[in-house]
Amino acid sequence: MRAHSDRGRAVELIERSRRAGAEDPTAPAAIRAWLSERAERASVRVDRTPLDALDGWSADPDTGDLRHRSGRFFSVRGLDVRRTEGQGEGWSQPIIDQPEVGVLGILVKEFDGVPHLLLQAKMEPGNVNGFQLSPTVQATRSNYTGVHRGRAVPYLEHFLSPDPERVLADSLQSEQGSWFLRKRNRNMVVLAPDGPIPVLEGFHWATLGQVHALLAEDDTVNMDTRTVLAGLPFHAGDPDEGARHSTTEVLSRLASARSRTDMTAVCAPLASIEGWKHTSEGEIVHESGRFFRVVGVDVTTSGREVGGWSQPMIAPSGTALTALVVREFEGVPHVLLNARAQAGLREIVELGPTVQCVPEDLADGAGPLPRLFEEVMGAEPERVLFDAVQSEEGGRFHHARTRNLIVDLSGRPLPKESPDDVWLAPAQVDALLRHGYYLSIEARSLIACLRSRV
Amino acid sequence: MRAHSDRGRAVELIERSRRAGAEDPTAPAAIRAWLSERAERASVRVDRTPLDALDGWSADPDTGDLRHRSGRFFSVRGLDVRRTEGQGEGWSQPIIDQPEVGVLGILVKEFDGVPHLLLQAKMEPGNVNGFQLSPTVQATRSNYTGVHRGRAVPYLEHFLSPDPERVLADSLQSEQGSWFLRKRNRNMVVLAPDGPIPVLEGFHWATLGQVHALLAEDDTVNMDTRTVLAGLPFHAGDPDEGARHSTTEVLSRLASARSRTDMTAVCAPLASIEGWKHTSEGEIVHESGRFFRVVGVDVTTSGREVGGWSQPMIAPSGTALTALVVREFEGVPHVLLNARAQAGLREIVELGPTVQCVPEDLADGAGPLPRLFEEVMGAEPERVLFDAVQSEEGGRFHHARTRNLIVDLSGRPLPKESPDDVWLAPAQVDALLRHGYYLSIEARSLIACLRSRV
Repeated sequence: MRAHSDRGRAVELIERSRRAGAEDPTAPAAIRAWLSERAERASVRVDRTPLDALDGWSADPDTGDLRHRSGRFFSVRGLDVRRTEGQGEGWSQPIIDQPEVGVLGILVKEFDGVPHLLLQAKMEPGNVNGFQLSPTVQATRSNYTGVHRGRAVPYLEHFLSPDPERVLADSLQSEQGSWFLRKRNRNMVVLAPDGPIPVLEGFHWATLGQVHALLAEDDTVNMDTRTVLAGLPFHAGDPDEGARHSTTEVLSRLASARSRTDMTAVCAPLASIEGWKHTSEGEIVHESGRFFRVVGVDVTTSGREVGGWSQPMIAPSGTALTALVVREFEGVPHVLLNARAQAGLREIVELGPTVQCVPEDLADGAGPLPRLFEEVMGAEPERVLFDAVQSEEGGRFHHARTRNLIVDLSGRPLPKESPDDVWLAPAQVDALLRHGYYLSIEARSLIACLRSRV
Repeated sequence: MRAHSDRGRAVELIERSRRAGAEDPTAPAAIRAWLSERAERASVRVDRTPLDALDGWSADPDTGDLRHRSGRFFSVRGLDVRRTEGQGEGWSQPIIDQPEVGVLGILVKEFDGVPHLLLQAKMEPGNVNGFQLSPTVQATRSNYTGVHRGRAVPYLEHFLSPDPERVLADSLQSEQGSWFLRKRNRNMVVLAPDGPIPVLEGFHWATLGQVHALLAEDDTVNMDTRTVLAGLPFHAGDPDEGARHSTTEVLSRLASARSRTDMTAVCAPLASIEGWKHTSEGEIVHESGRFFRVVGVDVTTSGREVGGWSQPMIAPSGTALTALVVREFEGVPHVLLNARAQAGLREIVELGPTVQCVPEDLADGAGPLPRLFEEVMGAEPERVLFDAVQSEEGGRFHHARTRNLIVDLSGRPLPKESPDDVWLAPAQVDALLRHGYYLSIEARSLIACLRSRV
């Protein structure tokens, strides 16, 4: 018998989990009820607090950077973004610097031949609704090396030194390139060892089919779960079978986009960045009121690692839109990704959604409509494959929500291609997601949503 | 007919070039003679010059960083390397910062059904022997955007916007992580368009078989050629066929090594780094005399882009050793790579050679012998698959040479595995090399050498 790390075997396992449990509508409903009950029983308060009054946090006297007294967790710094002539203007902004590699891990176990994923009902202070479904483990290195002075991270032992033959997926992936500085997390899916796995309070087994049903609900499956789901193996074999472009060509287009983009991002003192100001409410805002604010929160809870804490967060100015165009070529549904520069990404350019913007900002006439914006917003209902609002990381972002929209434009005239566009076949998406820094978090979230409808 | 970017078709093309031209020993000899003749005809002088006397270069008054007056090319900065407890001590060092993505490209064309590579006889001031075989194009962005005030880069048009279907390989790859700060270059192999390609003075067509024969000679095929050769497609199909570990497992081991390594590299003013001093000869050296020096050179030539120039270079203290262990598992020859941290790498950790060290430094008893050092140095002659001294990038490094040694330990007891070790089958090496930042330049050079002997 080959190891589970064998791609074909892993694909077969995940496919069994995908087909299971969703045909019975009571199963996702039961998980939803359990999640709601957790939220009702918990005692959580999140109060907005001026940045200069956050317990344990202070502005560095030289730079104005916001740091925790332990020197760990994360800091809020300034970033100067420079572009060369002809590529648009540069800008400055606050950014979250969290250099540690955290673990986002989902444990998988078969019950009566049906593989289940172990999920956690997790409260994050930035979530609009408090609790969402999170991976088995969602831990920064500070979490599990004890800087939190909290409890041990449950199930972490399955991810720190996993039996390599039980690993189904494992890669370092980026997170929001507009708000995080070169952040990445280790996305893992690991098959549990033989023998019973105790289900601790706050955890629940679910099939992939059930998780897919829950993805259709707003603000239910958190970002960390979505990025790990995106790494699940769905295809083995030749990724180029039926694909419009060979993988060599896809990789070449991305290398070209990365070479052409002359955007550089250099850290700068938070106190000195241009265009941003401290308000009398103790927040940092852009002079235009657009983009996002840096705000402080005090959290009081009885159900998390520690009883309470304070932290800065990024609070975006409006609900974002990310849209994915799907179109069949010779019977194979392809997705249209767009090589997009974001200053905080380690490689600056990753493949992002077809459309990515904040519609509120466009309403002001602040810029031209993004390419294909009108096509996706005006699509007939029968072309809409997916449409739900998902939350971004609630541990760092305050009420950050994104409409995930997937539209099938099969049979419609082909949009004029730009050199930054790439059509990918499903197996190519899978193959790229085995590696880090190819698909942005925004694209990965959409891919996880798309697979729930295929 | 499928495009050349199709992997199977590209592999077949490269295989035809590999088999051609080497069985006739006069063909490589003719290329060698042409290269020697170029070197003899050229008028080149390289004079060591104090750093503070380099034309166009000066130390930044605030930081001491060495910069060109144009603000382009590269700079020499300081780097503070920090490690957390238990992972060894930190250190400081000078490092070359060259943020631009350059192009290293080889043009391929079939003559009478035999694909040939277009190589260039290129002088670099740091080469021990002046001229070596370089890729068709070896250009920094400053080269081809005209900062050099020199001639246009020949053949560049084939690489800047190639027909994607004619691309055989294209990826961003790292360079020396001990001397370069997060440097990467675009490694490309492109099939020429139909029609004649003029052969300019200083260029020569060679089959891959001929290049392989020349690789056996010391200091002949330059580093830029070797890294591009490493990206050539040699295998299509399932990379895991016959492999000791699945690709999922290999990627997981690397993700684990990257997560475990708590090394951070932060730029610091060159004037303030600890342990380094300016000498009265105008060089920067480590107090111990070990590692490397930063030196200045004045170059006078009639055969390059411009008539003469001055620049700082890194001059290492001794010839390095990189060794690769090969061993058969169930009839499939695997290579033993080692996940190794180098402060200048973008991801800190890449897969490197089995052994990588500077033997002179070890002779002082300065540290324990690297694992497997004695096995590779003491191997019986019939186990030595490859042994030649190769030059590192002569544009930035002064007389930097590395003994590339490949030893077959098949049938010998298996070395005790460390978590940082990975055995890779040939097709897995190929598959990883389609992506950036998996194999270090030291490992890629050895892979290019290994393929010349298989």
